[in-house]
Amino acid sequence: MPQIAPEQQIIDQLLAAWNSQNRQLTEWLNKLPAQSWLQEVAPGKNSGIYLLGHLIAVSDALLPLLGFGERLYPELEKPFLSNPYKPGSDYPGLEQLITCWTTVNQRLDASFNTCSPANWLSRHQAVSEADFALQPHRNKLNVLISRMNHLAYHIGQLRLLPASA
Amino acid sequence: MPQIAPEQQIIDQLLAAWNSQNRQLTEWLNKLPAQSWLQEVAPGKNSGIYLLGHLIAVSDALLPLLGFGERLYPELEKPFLSNPYKPGSDYPGLEQLITCWTTVNQRLDASFNTCSPANWLSRHQAVSEADFALQPHRNKLNVLISRMNHLAYHIGQLRLLPASA
Repeated sequence: MPQIAPEQQIIDQLLAAWNSQNRQLTEWLNKLPAQSWLQEVAPGKNSGIYLLGHLIAVSDALLPLLGFGERLYPELEKPFLSNPYKPGSDYPGLEQLITCWTTVNQRLDASFNTCSPANWLSRHQAVSEADFALQPHRNKLNVLISRMNHLAYHIGQLRLLPASA
Repeated sequence: MPQIAPEQQIIDQLLAAWNSQNRQLTEWLNKLPAQSWLQEVAPGKNSGIYLLGHLIAVSDALLPLLGFGERLYPELEKPFLSNPYKPGSDYPGLEQLITCWTTVNQRLDASFNTCSPANWLSRHQAVSEADFALQPHRNKLNVLISRMNHLAYHIGQLRLLPASA
């Protein structure tokens, strides 16, 4: 087996964990009837559709934050990032959101796979060069770790949706 | 600023993220009245007490799995790992579980802080040397990443508990 630099190995493991989380949500999307996604994860809490849209908008925002390009779906910001869940709102439908989810993940995957360890450890776009010089942990990899935990947090909630209508 | 090896920097960032997750749960424990922890996170789902005990038992099991020693509270395995949540069960009280939670985290923290990158990338105790030679990603760090996502997953559910009784 060819030697691999330890930082490359760790980054590969983190990307595998990130992909595993995304796959878990995709599998849940494939398993649950559309009706279930309209329900709230617990009484008076966010609906499945809202949390799905929220996760897509957060992942989409990784593109500019990590320097990989513009967001694909800036129109998701208002309903799913700027505003909290509001019952009865006219949210996009499940099919449309699944398309967005798949497309954003493919795009992130392509960018992540060409990102070197040095690039992962470079600053993200929301921190200045001056601040980064003092706080080198505010790098792209830290954003990925933080978003992975955010994803797992909401998957835990989405798994409370009923598996049958 | 002294140079730090990239793998050490990434591991430090991962440990900071792990600690941040644990801190979030500790803050939630401090914030919610004891009554809230007796409730289920959603109708018919796990109770707060069950999920707390489950997270303690999983973290406690990291000690032998990562080669840091014996579990501190093996008695938590039966109610919180081997068995699913059962309403009306005689679970330990919140105060007792908070003590376990604090103690396990202090113990893990002490072990994690003395663990070198090479040790983090070595095999954990549930994989054989032969298997590890073929699958070097089955190392201690991978267990930490996986448990961090598991923790975030259940914190997402625990955050659904009512903040006031």
